[in-house]
Amino acid sequence: MKSMMQRMVVVWQKGLNNNMTCRSQSRALNTLKDNYSCQILKSPPLASLDLPDVWTHSSTHYDPPSTQNCTNEQTAAVIDGKSIAEEIRLRIASEVSRMKKSIGQVPGLAVILVGQRKDSQTYVRNKIKACEEAGIKSVMTELPDDCTEDEVLCALSSFNENPSVHGILVQLPLPQHFNEEKILNVVSLEKDVDGFHPLNMGNLAMRGREPLFIPCTPKGCIELLFRSGIEIMGKKAVVIGRSNIVGLPTSLLLQRHHATVSIVHAFTKNPEQITCEADIVVTAVGVPNLVRGSWLKPGAVVIDVGTYPVEDPSCEHGYRLIGDVCYEEAIRVVSAITPVPGGVGPMTIAMLLFNTLHSAKRAYDFT
Amino acid sequence: MKSMMQRMVVVWQKGLNNNMTCRSQSRALNTLKDNYSCQILKSPPLASLDLPDVWTHSSTHYDPPSTQNCTNEQTAAVIDGKSIAEEIRLRIASEVSRMKKSIGQVPGLAVILVGQRKDSQTYVRNKIKACEEAGIKSVMTELPDDCTEDEVLCALSSFNENPSVHGILVQLPLPQHFNEEKILNVVSLEKDVDGFHPLNMGNLAMRGREPLFIPCTPKGCIELLFRSGIEIMGKKAVVIGRSNIVGLPTSLLLQRHHATVSIVHAFTKNPEQITCEADIVVTAVGVPNLVRGSWLKPGAVVIDVGTYPVEDPSCEHGYRLIGDVCYEEAIRVVSAITPVPGGVGPMTIAMLLFNTLHSAKRAYDFT
Repeated sequence: MKSMMQRMVVVWQKGLNNNMTCRSQSRALNTLKDNYSCQILKSPPLASLDLPDVWTHSSTHYDPPSTQNCTNEQTAAVIDGKSIAEEIRLRIASEVSRMKKSIGQVPGLAVILVGQRKDSQTYVRNKIKACEEAGIKSVMTELPDDCTEDEVLCALSSFNENPSVHGILVQLPLPQHFNEEKILNVVSLEKDVDGFHPLNMGNLAMRGREPLFIPCTPKGCIELLFRSGIEIMGKKAVVIGRSNIVGLPTSLLLQRHHATVSIVHAFTKNPEQITCEADIVVTAVGVPNLVRGSWLKPGAVVIDVGTYPVEDPSCEHGYRLIGDVCYEEAIRVVSAITPVPGGVGPMTIAMLLFNTLHSAKRAYDFT
Repeated sequence: MKSMMQRMVVVWQKGLNNNMTCRSQSRALNTLKDNYSCQILKSPPLASLDLPDVWTHSSTHYDPPSTQNCTNEQTAAVIDGKSIAEEIRLRIASEVSRMKKSIGQVPGLAVILVGQRKDSQTYVRNKIKACEEAGIKSVMTELPDDCTEDEVLCALSSFNENPSVHGILVQLPLPQHFNEEKILNVVSLEKDVDGFHPLNMGNLAMRGREPLFIPCTPKGCIELLFRSGIEIMGKKAVVIGRSNIVGLPTSLLLQRHHATVSIVHAFTKNPEQITCEADIVVTAVGVPNLVRGSWLKPGAVVIDVGTYPVEDPSCEHGYRLIGDVCYEEAIRVVSAITPVPGGVGPMTIAMLLFNTLHSAKRAYDFT
């Protein structure tokens, strides 16, 4: 889960850093205004407007919840992502076994891991373990931190051409000297089980078109809603965060299911006011306790994609994970909520397996 | 402008047709629920959920505005799209002339027109006239209604390969027997001046990526805002309608400029309530007078993309165009509004010329 957060575009800085970033944002804007005032169009070029999302809301400074504004009673059902994911993985395993019996083939997932990041190694290990349990064949290429772009591209090409590989995953983040966009562009569209290719995203966004893959975490969020009997059509949904891998595709997906979607980001004034009108809130920014109880409408449903490690000597690894939502406050207000951990996290891996199976079925024309 | 409306996905039907469409929507949903209850995932496949947008709000039945709820005074500035577009076209002409003097080349636009639709012929004629005035070379291929797909694809391929063509436009709608998606997919990405290719849309949606072209009408809307001194960043924007050619790209574009965007569509409950919180409203559904004065926040800015012909014997052609917004009511509430006609319409052509110039500059590496 942490790797997912590291792949998010959101920048969360406090104090001096934060002020500096705000100043540089404003400087960048002024320079833009000066440079483009004599052009044909008044609108500045898009790329340069791609400012970092810096969250500065004071409510992110978390104090233990007061009981003044909420009852002491927990009203929320806890959406158990772990057991829902488990159930999905069992069904995937049974489909893989049916495929093997029927055509003698199984789905294959290839993972490319560059460098020695401990967290990346853990996530890759978890994915490979999940593949094994479902009967999906996995292969991994490990490359050292100082390898060249060509070495990564070469490994990618070989997986692109290998007919027994149906899904390819480049574990992110890559070491800093790599051009992530260039590398991800090389992943064959038919094997892009992460669904991050812009063509895929365009097809997800456009009516009448269909993406080859739906990105895993957004798909997991929607699945949690469906499995919890929560209707999406006609509901007001707010997505907090607009990252390419969670916020954006989740908003597009909710809209495809006919929710009325608003996207809240670091430049939103009064995010609280917009969020507290939503029937469904999906939050994916990685800012601990950003969403307080007062941000939520009584009876709303909350899907918390954020994860943030906080030190906790009482836990096995010396830390525990918390989400974007102030859980203790939220459970007294909303009707259903995902916990962190054990909510969206397990669903991401289940959806990765699902996409790999789906890709293999398509490759072998197996129904 | 009408062709643009015809290209929109929105279906607007009244009475029996409307009821039938609602019933078939509900039938489709029930079938989906039955078919997919035994699948691995609970979420139905996306393509099948692509229901038509049927607007059924009673407020669309327009009666002459009452003066009870609004003052008699016009408070809105009228955003004069015609003169803004004229200014942009003059600057484009001057750039084209500079290009010709400097490298002996001019931008080229190719138009493919299939069939004998009077309205399509008019729009194409207007585009070609605008090209001429700006010094942009235009070529047109006219094909009969009963031509084959291969003939259209052949014309397209020849324009794709022609280095003096920098923009290609397939005038929509195509006759019914054509697969529009298949044909549009063949337009070279570098010449897709309409910007409707899904790869282009994906790049528009994703942070850190840049589309080759921004679709003309959405770009025109943003330009009107910039030229009217209206700040977008941090503002609440509502886009009404989610068509691939206006609603979707406009919402993505507003978000890139850091507005907080909500997308209202036919499945939105209480669209009025969401719209009347917006600082900026862009409406593109083609439902006359859908947006009443009561839908608008005092001081909001309204960009009306909708056009709908209504009979009017006093007008030259026996009809006049009206927009999605009840103009007479809106001008008493908002701070600025585009008229219909003379608002967004002229901007669409100006942006088409801009995209063609931009494409030629890229092709010749001319700055």
